[in-house]
Amino acid sequence: MSTFDPKEHPHIRYNPLMEEWVTVSPHRMKRPWKGQVEKSEEEEIPSYDPNNSLCPGNTRSSGKVNPQYEGTFLFDNDFPALLKDGPAPSANPDPLFQSAPAYGACQVMCFHPRSDLTLPLMSQSEVREVIDKWAEINTDLGKKYTWVQIFENKGNVMGCSNPHPHCQVWASSYFPNDPAKKHRTQREYYDKHKVPLLVDYVKKELQKQERVVLQNEHWVWLVPYWAIWPYETMLLPKRHVLRIEDLTSAERDALADIMKKLLTKYDNMFEVSFPYSMGWHGAPTGDYLQQDNSHWQLHALYFPPLLRSATVKKFMVGYEMLAQSQRDLTAEQAAEKLKSLPDVHYKSQNS
Amino acid sequence: MSTFDPKEHPHIRYNPLMEEWVTVSPHRMKRPWKGQVEKSEEEEIPSYDPNNSLCPGNTRSSGKVNPQYEGTFLFDNDFPALLKDGPAPSANPDPLFQSAPAYGACQVMCFHPRSDLTLPLMSQSEVREVIDKWAEINTDLGKKYTWVQIFENKGNVMGCSNPHPHCQVWASSYFPNDPAKKHRTQREYYDKHKVPLLVDYVKKELQKQERVVLQNEHWVWLVPYWAIWPYETMLLPKRHVLRIEDLTSAERDALADIMKKLLTKYDNMFEVSFPYSMGWHGAPTGDYLQQDNSHWQLHALYFPPLLRSATVKKFMVGYEMLAQSQRDLTAEQAAEKLKSLPDVHYKSQNS
Ligand SMILES: O=P(O)(O)O[C@H]1O[C@H](CO)[C@@H](O)[C@H](O)[C@H]1O
Ligand SMILES: O=P(O)(O)O[C@H]1O[C@H](CO)[C@@H](O)[C@H](O)[C@H]1O
Repeated sequence: MSTFDPKEHPHIRYNPLMEEWVTVSPHRMKRPWKGQVEKSEEEEIPSYDPNNSLCPGNTRSSGKVNPQYEGTFLFDNDFPALLKDGPAPSANPDPLFQSAPAYGACQVMCFHPRSDLTLPLMSQSEVREVIDKWAEINTDLGKKYTWVQIFENKGNVMGCSNPHPHCQVWASSYFPNDPAKKHRTQREYYDKHKVPLLVDYVKKELQKQERVVLQNEHWVWLVPYWAIWPYETMLLPKRHVLRIEDLTSAERDALADIMKKLLTKYDNMFEVSFPYSMGWHGAPTGDYLQQDNSHWQLHALYFPPLLRSATVKKFMVGYEMLAQSQRDLTAEQAAEKLKSLPDVHYKSQNS
Repeated sequence: MSTFDPKEHPHIRYNPLMEEWVTVSPHRMKRPWKGQVEKSEEEEIPSYDPNNSLCPGNTRSSGKVNPQYEGTFLFDNDFPALLKDGPAPSANPDPLFQSAPAYGACQVMCFHPRSDLTLPLMSQSEVREVIDKWAEINTDLGKKYTWVQIFENKGNVMGCSNPHPHCQVWASSYFPNDPAKKHRTQREYYDKHKVPLLVDYVKKELQKQERVVLQNEHWVWLVPYWAIWPYETMLLPKRHVLRIEDLTSAERDALADIMKKLLTKYDNMFEVSFPYSMGWHGAPTGDYLQQDNSHWQLHALYFPPLLRSATVKKFMVGYEMLAQSQRDLTAEQAAEKLKSLPDVHYKSQNS
């Protein structure tokens, strides 16, 4: 029997943060319909559209009017999934019918007044403004809420129906499933190893250099060993940082720099505005601000669905919904591919 | 403050099988763009297509030729995600870089020789043949493998690129995340309450009658209290049954009956062939055949993505990928809607 080669032989890998395995089937990359990298027709988005509810000066469907904003613009979601107050369900002793109160705030932040821009096409100082705003939001909503989820859904395929560059924030009184689990797993690791899981992980990845795509003085961008999505990545500070508002000014500049490069490489992959969902995970807030959260390390997660071309995505369906996630190309192959891509945007090359 | 109404006020609900919460935002159903129920153009699928690799007599991309099958047709997946043997990764002491062996078998089963049929349009005895085949597969692959995942991806939106009615089976040497968790949670419940979690659950749901959509002598079809997808449902036997092959002949006939009705109601929702991923979960196999699995109860899960119309689905994206699942309409509202739909197929009404 030949020796094991992760690029050739099926295996499973463990995600110690989520306590979940992923099935890796690298041999499936050899399927005959592996598919070519097709250039998709990109829709021409106007810089300003009188019918786009996110543009400066326009009226939203709630009747509210946007100011003539010139940088970022933050407002309360007109149709929030969570509300600040209201009646709460009463406790039910039956373990099979458990519900609990859920309060929260939902906000939307436009990144830029122009609809035809995305983060990689914005200037570094404009991206820095977005980062400063994220820090402000996390501080503000964190005073009241346990968890502040900042996230961006980008592209139609990720349920984003408005092309204007924006992100969302859902802050909640409850600690959502995934970050609550990461709170526990990082605590257990810290208690056992006396070092935060993700700080240890980055140190090891920097030594191995098998999955690191990019780094600068303050940040590392890598494909996690346990990645699920074809080109899933994680962005982490080199220093131990609990929350986004704890970043120094130099770290924020360096973040703007690496984010621009990262998103440029993504766009260059299939020469299309790369769809993804992304978000930040850091130490919890609200009542947790009073507790020791040294086991946490701030990080951003990018989940892009495209697999083979601008028009062929990975479907997380039957097996993935019922059993566990599965991927074809390995994390190392994904990192290799991302490394090989230019970090000058394909659109700026043409101009 | 008014009293709590689950149809009006945001809350979270707990899934005791998966130990996960779902955010329920029923007030969002009032959004102005709630959307009309549009009839989508259905593609005309020919009964036989010389270019469809799943039709009787055709050659698949692997070069293998399908027999002139007249009922179901089972074959090994030409591009399996798992292989029967091969080299295995060696153990690594580092908890952050864990991998493990993964062996398995991947099969495809065509339900019927005709491409233009789906389960609800097949006769009850034809559906019964599919059920018998599922039982056979679970027995056969279960001799060797820990977990036999039978699943169907239906519709383009669920990553199914071949319209011919078929399901897949991925059997594995490892116990996948979700069923492994359900193995533990059902065991813990059984140890504590001396009754299987899902047997207890069905008993209570039959009393409450708030989420039960349909039942017959042997089966219950319901929207689970903790459902995530808009019209997610669960199908369970009334008797305590560990695995699909343990079903009696009468139970299999009753299953064919309720499945036809269930899938007919789904199709009638938006008068379109309703996309979904579905699959069976029952007691594990392989080495587990020698163990006591009384805590398990067999069930099928249906995860359909459509939300508002044949063309508007629920996106499980940013918040859902990073924090926790969220839904707008409640489980009770979904059950109500499903109950109200006719169980005569819209296509048969027209003929
Ligand atoms: O039917 P296929 O092409 O084997 O594959 C489909 O189902 C699989 C199992 O859920 C997924 O892993 C694939 O992403 C999906 O496209
Ligand atoms: O941008 P929207 O319309 O608020 O909503 C989008 O993101 C939400 C948070 O991930 C999801 O719950 C919705 O399904 C999605 O369409």
